[in-house]
Amino acid sequence: MSDNANNQRQLRLGAILHGASGNMSAWRHPDATADASINLEFNIASAKKAEQGKFDFVFVADGLYINEKSIPHFLNRFEPLTLLAALSAATDKIGLVGTLSTSYSDPFTVARQFASLDHLSNGRAGWNVVTSPLEGSAKNFSRKEHPEHSLRYRIAGEFLDVAKGLWDSWEDDAFVRNKASGEFFRTGKLHTLNHQGEFFSVQGPLNIGRTPQGRPILFQAGASEDGKRLAAQHADAIFTHHDTLEQAQDFYQDVKRQLVEQGREPDDLRIFQGVSVIVGDDDADVERQYQETARLVSIENALNYLGRYFEHYDFARHPLDAPFPDIGDLGQNSFRSTTDAIKHNARERNLTLRQVALEAASPRPVFSGTPEAVADGLQRWFDSEAADGFIISGGTPNAFGHFVDRVVPILQQRGLFRQAYHGDTLREHLGLKRPLNRFTQ
Amino acid sequence: MSDNANNQRQLRLGAILHGASGNMSAWRHPDATADASINLEFNIASAKKAEQGKFDFVFVADGLYINEKSIPHFLNRFEPLTLLAALSAATDKIGLVGTLSTSYSDPFTVARQFASLDHLSNGRAGWNVVTSPLEGSAKNFSRKEHPEHSLRYRIAGEFLDVAKGLWDSWEDDAFVRNKASGEFFRTGKLHTLNHQGEFFSVQGPLNIGRTPQGRPILFQAGASEDGKRLAAQHADAIFTHHDTLEQAQDFYQDVKRQLVEQGREPDDLRIFQGVSVIVGDDDADVERQYQETARLVSIENALNYLGRYFEHYDFARHPLDAPFPDIGDLGQNSFRSTTDAIKHNARERNLTLRQVALEAASPRPVFSGTPEAVADGLQRWFDSEAADGFIISGGTPNAFGHFVDRVVPILQQRGLFRQAYHGDTLREHLGLKRPLNRFTQ
Ligand SMILES: Cc1cc2nc3c(=O)[nH]c(=O)nc-3n(C[C@H](O)[C@H](O)[C@H](O)COP(=O)(O)O)c2cc1C
Ligand SMILES: Cc1cc2nc3c(=O)[nH]c(=O)nc-3n(C[C@H](O)[C@H](O)[C@H](O)COP(=O)(O)O)c2cc1C
Repeated sequence: MSDNANNQRQLRLGAILHGASGNMSAWRHPDATADASINLEFNIASAKKAEQGKFDFVFVADGLYINEKSIPHFLNRFEPLTLLAALSAATDKIGLVGTLSTSYSDPFTVARQFASLDHLSNGRAGWNVVTSPLEGSAKNFSRKEHPEHSLRYRIAGEFLDVAKGLWDSWEDDAFVRNKASGEFFRTGKLHTLNHQGEFFSVQGPLNIGRTPQGRPILFQAGASEDGKRLAAQHADAIFTHHDTLEQAQDFYQDVKRQLVEQGREPDDLRIFQGVSVIVGDDDADVERQYQETARLVSIENALNYLGRYFEHYDFARHPLDAPFPDIGDLGQNSFRSTTDAIKHNARERNLTLRQVALEAASPRPVFSGTPEAVADGLQRWFDSEAADGFIISGGTPNAFGHFVDRVVPILQQRGLFRQAYHGDTLREHLGLKRPLNRFTQ
Repeated sequence: MSDNANNQRQLRLGAILHGASGNMSAWRHPDATADASINLEFNIASAKKAEQGKFDFVFVADGLYINEKSIPHFLNRFEPLTLLAALSAATDKIGLVGTLSTSYSDPFTVARQFASLDHLSNGRAGWNVVTSPLEGSAKNFSRKEHPEHSLRYRIAGEFLDVAKGLWDSWEDDAFVRNKASGEFFRTGKLHTLNHQGEFFSVQGPLNIGRTPQGRPILFQAGASEDGKRLAAQHADAIFTHHDTLEQAQDFYQDVKRQLVEQGREPDDLRIFQGVSVIVGDDDADVERQYQETARLVSIENALNYLGRYFEHYDFARHPLDAPFPDIGDLGQNSFRSTTDAIKHNARERNLTLRQVALEAASPRPVFSGTPEAVADGLQRWFDSEAADGFIISGGTPNAFGHFVDRVVPILQQRGLFRQAYHGDTLREHLGLKRPLNRFTQ
């Protein structure tokens, strides 16, 4: 059958690139590449596997602060932009999305590096805009303090105004390069930004031409109210995570509504749910695979993992089998939406600290089962507008490969997902309009 | 004959990657790739050509400020780190050196990105440390003013202290990744920097392991007294440019002496002279090639080019055929060593503004002639300790290819230059010792 025969709404897929996948201790799995986060061959193979599955993009997360208790694959990993630039040369079609913080960088450099990646990859660059949840980041960047949550988002908003302005420095047809006349560019097609704002003053122009995609695709990954507003104003896509269909639907509706409030179309932004998957022959096989990976996490590992979300709080001081302790507002200025959810869940289900920690460190994938069952689950979320697409991470070190080999063909047969790339750019994969340069008439 | 048969001192070679080479208007040459500075295929082909010639490295220059009068290939070019990361995937052995400014960046990010490039390329990363000559850079980075010359170098010194500290965050053998025991790294092999200085406070550790080269190779490109001191303290290599053998020898001796004063060995730092070459069948052929490229530069282009060195001074207000005007101290706070040389040369040789501008914009290569003559010239500079090696840029769009095809074999036959790569890393190519981690006993 042909792709999208009935003009059906199309599902989109991204693939997380990080260390051995499953949980923080999955590197211990017999099948895992233990140094995956710093192993180029592993990353190339993963990206090629995703490309074989016709995925829209690979996605690289990031962080700016570690200590000796951090998750293993955060300790020693490639920096996203350099990794994606290397992958651009090793892949053809797949989008390349990387995380970078607006709280600890300069818009001129960031706009330039992502524009450069977009040129290098012929229009496959995406930037996951984050504001850095970890307080410790400030200490690595000569700052007295980590800006608080709402200030970070104000900075982010202005940062994106500047970046978008810089990406319009040159109109699409600015460079004529007429060898005979000596005209290299059309003077009227160069625009100097002259931004003077609350946090940044940036004159421009950017020293790189308008990019194949007009500008790189903007992802946003914060789920708080401020995060959603930023996304509705600026983003092309959201990377979010919800545990239940209902929560995901609420989020979806809320964001699409805010989008319209901002004068944009509901279709101008794609909402991706981050999901972890395990694919098996039957339930017993899935459970076996899950346990094989889950049992690698020690309770010490799990407490550290949990602590990281709460400003590196030391949970080991609390009894493991008593109810989850009251730790007040801790977490509000870092991973707010995540820590709110953890606290809420612990209260609702009356969980002990041990349970909360182990569930956090080795969550049971919501989408697990036979290939058909996983496809059914995704389709249900997709059809009921809980998501426009999914960012897949393996629930075990082998699960991503299983997903590509066994689940993707089902999604394709159902006409939900492409059988071949129809365009060359990430923007085309996502079905998003190319933005006009603000100066083009 | 075998390489280096007599344990002869070995010459090293780098290749400039930029737009069409020759001069600012060389993109108009019939053989030029007009969009070379933003054309990945061109850059890959150039890097592969250099690798075919067994060059030590390719070198990417950079700048942080443009305006409508800037050199064409500065207007629209790849950002160095992303370009080099892409080239790392398209090449095997050649070193990858990129320029980045310590005046407008954060040491944590810079240390991370170069470390990442070093991992991605299996030990081929080099950083050309510059302090940004162009005053306008401040306007792109939310700064009130461009720090003056000596302040820039003080910042650079501390920046490199921090970067080197971060690169020692992890000892070489820190990551054991023992699947059975669950030990991912040895606790005692992780070191937190806790730097508190005049300009930066950076806690660390860096979130990437020690790199294949121990740390990336450090180039330094400033030729002022402050620049030389920074190099003697920190650098593995210098990229410099001198017009005469005597000046180059003086510079060479001075730097090697300062190196010893700093407690280092003369052999710990390689001095590269940047040279432009034209290779021809005879003098007439060389002259024809030179003129073919030189005549592409208009006098307006040339005045703009000259102006850029002098804080974008508008030379067009002066008569073209009168002696070079007295413009006072202009240039002292930007390209000091270059502007001093231009002024000195104009005075000594009694040149007109037109002559100064055209010579600056399309300098006659010092190393031009038959393949033998070019090889002789390089050998003379090398043997008389004016340089440890050369960074080659073509004096015409075709000249670099000619150099690889016709001059390199002669240098190889003379036993001056390698016939095959003997090592895998840039550090090995350059014959430099791998630095010990400061914490390793
Ligand atoms: C699904 C998801 C993925 C995220 N990925 C990253 C990441 O890779 N790096 C990062 O620094 N922050 C990441 N964040 C954190 C957010 O960018 C944000 O800083 C934090 O969640 C606080 O904002 P919020 O309260 O709006 O969620 C992620 C958040 C979510 C929900
Ligand atoms: C051969 C050479 C190459 C240089 N390359 C760059 C470059 O690519 N980017 C840059 O910003 N500055 C570059 N510079 C400028 C220097 O780094 C420095 O900022 C400037 O020359 C002023 O320092 P100085 O007075 O010590 O030379 C270069 C300088 C020289 C001599």
